[in-house]
Amino acid sequence: MTATLLEIGKQARQAARGLALASSAQKNKALKAMAAHIRNNAAAITTANQNDLVAAQAKDLKSSFIDRLTLNEARIEAMAKGLEEIADLNDPVGRVQEKWTRPNGMEISRVAVPIGVIGIIYESRPNVTADAGALCLKSGNAAILRGGSDGFASSQAIITCLQAGLKDAGLDVNCIQMIPTTDRESVGAMLTSLNGTIDLIVPRGGKNLVARVQSEARVPVFSHLEGICHVYVDKAADLEMARAIVLNAKMRRTGVCGSAETILVDRAKPENLKPIIRTLIDAGCEIRGDAESMAADAAVKPASEADWSTEYLDAIVSVKMVDGVEGAIQHIAKYGSQHTDSIVTSEQKIAEKFLSEVDSAIVLHNASTQFADGGEFGFGAEIGIATGKMHARGPVGVEQLTTFKYQIRGNGQIRP
Amino acid sequence: MTATLLEIGKQARQAARGLALASSAQKNKALKAMAAHIRNNAAAITTANQNDLVAAQAKDLKSSFIDRLTLNEARIEAMAKGLEEIADLNDPVGRVQEKWTRPNGMEISRVAVPIGVIGIIYESRPNVTADAGALCLKSGNAAILRGGSDGFASSQAIITCLQAGLKDAGLDVNCIQMIPTTDRESVGAMLTSLNGTIDLIVPRGGKNLVARVQSEARVPVFSHLEGICHVYVDKAADLEMARAIVLNAKMRRTGVCGSAETILVDRAKPENLKPIIRTLIDAGCEIRGDAESMAADAAVKPASEADWSTEYLDAIVSVKMVDGVEGAIQHIAKYGSQHTDSIVTSEQKIAEKFLSEVDSAIVLHNASTQFADGGEFGFGAEIGIATGKMHARGPVGVEQLTTFKYQIRGNGQIRP
Repeated sequence: MTATLLEIGKQARQAARGLALASSAQKNKALKAMAAHIRNNAAAITTANQNDLVAAQAKDLKSSFIDRLTLNEARIEAMAKGLEEIADLNDPVGRVQEKWTRPNGMEISRVAVPIGVIGIIYESRPNVTADAGALCLKSGNAAILRGGSDGFASSQAIITCLQAGLKDAGLDVNCIQMIPTTDRESVGAMLTSLNGTIDLIVPRGGKNLVARVQSEARVPVFSHLEGICHVYVDKAADLEMARAIVLNAKMRRTGVCGSAETILVDRAKPENLKPIIRTLIDAGCEIRGDAESMAADAAVKPASEADWSTEYLDAIVSVKMVDGVEGAIQHIAKYGSQHTDSIVTSEQKIAEKFLSEVDSAIVLHNASTQFADGGEFGFGAEIGIATGKMHARGPVGVEQLTTFKYQIRGNGQIRP
Repeated sequence: MTATLLEIGKQARQAARGLALASSAQKNKALKAMAAHIRNNAAAITTANQNDLVAAQAKDLKSSFIDRLTLNEARIEAMAKGLEEIADLNDPVGRVQEKWTRPNGMEISRVAVPIGVIGIIYESRPNVTADAGALCLKSGNAAILRGGSDGFASSQAIITCLQAGLKDAGLDVNCIQMIPTTDRESVGAMLTSLNGTIDLIVPRGGKNLVARVQSEARVPVFSHLEGICHVYVDKAADLEMARAIVLNAKMRRTGVCGSAETILVDRAKPENLKPIIRTLIDAGCEIRGDAESMAADAAVKPASEADWSTEYLDAIVSVKMVDGVEGAIQHIAKYGSQHTDSIVTSEQKIAEKFLSEVDSAIVLHNASTQFADGGEFGFGAEIGIATGKMHARGPVGVEQLTTFKYQIRGNGQIRP
């Protein structure tokens, strides 16, 4: 590991100690100052972004990649506004999560505290620089950011604004640092904790990035590899509600992790199949189905075994008939990704079975899978969605970026 | 990995699915039946234990090792009683941790669910077999146990009773399995998740075992490497209270992780030093001190730099003068193990500074560090103490062996 990387880790650890004790007012002052600096330096950010874009365009990258890399006036304003919104969230640090008194009079409180130092590894999306840095700051954690090489100049221009905001509020500028190189070795060093200074890694990006992080990280990771989300339409579903939910779950935005990839229909009510398929086809969705779905509508293409575990992130969906809620639960256990799954039914008992037996971070009854989002949960901004079972599951907002300690207040208690 | 190990992992995963849905009554029935089987098979357990002991004695092992390996009538009864006590705990599974309603009418519940499959790696202490297996069962998790080779026959006799209890209650006997070999490879296979079937590892044993688990595990681990616990006696401490707490923290039981290893005394009140040192010496404790401690009492031996980070687990303590609460906080940040630390003071403001700034799982004011224990927290039995920052921190009881999912109940909500 280079001396620079080691130094960044040490500085982050030290900054984290001070930041853990910073007041809400001080952190919010920093966030608002960052927003002002971003607005005031929109020209410099745009120039840096232009440099990144020129270099990227020369590489003949995908248009979706170029789009994510691009900053314009509206996006820079959205970034500044995002920082102000994070300032407006409740401070998660110091919240007393539980409190009880022991028979001997000791009072035990479980109090939220920051995790420490969080490493964010992301692709060439400059807005993540502001967004992730701010969420870490709000939750009292120092951040070490390592963005994609194609967005390096843009991210640097943004970091300058963030650090200026920290300075304005009297906070250590090392609360948010950026890795100054874009070589792959720095990612490896972060995944092995930068010599014990990184407590948690959050990858933000596509499946390849997340897979590398998950397989190489020697520190905890909050992530989801993919969202193979299901909507199961039970025999007792209200058909109109089912159509609306299926349409929304698949087509509202097809590129988000909470979009549905497979629709399961109860074999006990085969007449539901055609209207559901038609609703999707009419909205421009390609259907890949099992034999029964193909029989229901001539536009349905055949699904292969691989389709049941494919995250299309596109206007494509797989459709299958299953034997009731039990069949749906089994299909999801086999092919799902423990992300978000929904049941549409009017029978409470069937809904409760689904909610309790499907082993996913988020399970819904009579609602769209696209609610898998920190904002929709009321968490404010989120740094991502986690499908692991440890610590954070589902949307990861500022509260999920904290851990806790037990504070015990006594008056001389000793243990018998 | 051998076919047997793979099979154990698969069976555990399948058993965990069913167990996650088992009722409290069914789990408690199993635990009580296990206790009965242990009592009824005390003779067989004793015979197996005798075989282990004969083999161990031939190896010329330490007497403390032999003691931990030994089962007698009283210890077998304590094991059975322990199972019944775990049956009497509240079931942590299904508890609604939080619940709120969104503006669109969706009701979001955060509900406790089991983690899945837990691997327990422990030394030759046969009682851990019953204890750890039961805590996993109560929290709805399948357990894979890998005990020390010297206690193999004893553990097998106990497992037979546990599985008989599972059977009596109609539960899958694979809810609690034991690795049938004692080679080191099986530990390695568990630490890399037995082909994705282990969700969490809990090591139970000495520092060498925990260090190996922490360095090799590719799955989350709940553990503490050591407990370098401090008592800081502030200038505003009530001296009698301080003496009682210091004495209890160090000497009640010297071999537990919550026993104090270093006493810090405020330099602003040097006259406190001698009576505190004397209290410990009179109780048979060896003192290793800094220059000021040596000057205070001729019986104090010199402390080396290594003493400040040594977990004696014995009637030895290091003593040092520090500059007030700030000095104590800095000493603990440098030498502590983020386990359990206590302050004795009558000044509320100083206590609050210590409670908020010391970055340990458990921080106490005017109480003994020996309260670092799940039972003393009111958690009932514990599987260990965790010093990591993820998921569980402090005593790990049945509640800490669960994770959660979000259940969302709607009436047709789609996302705008």
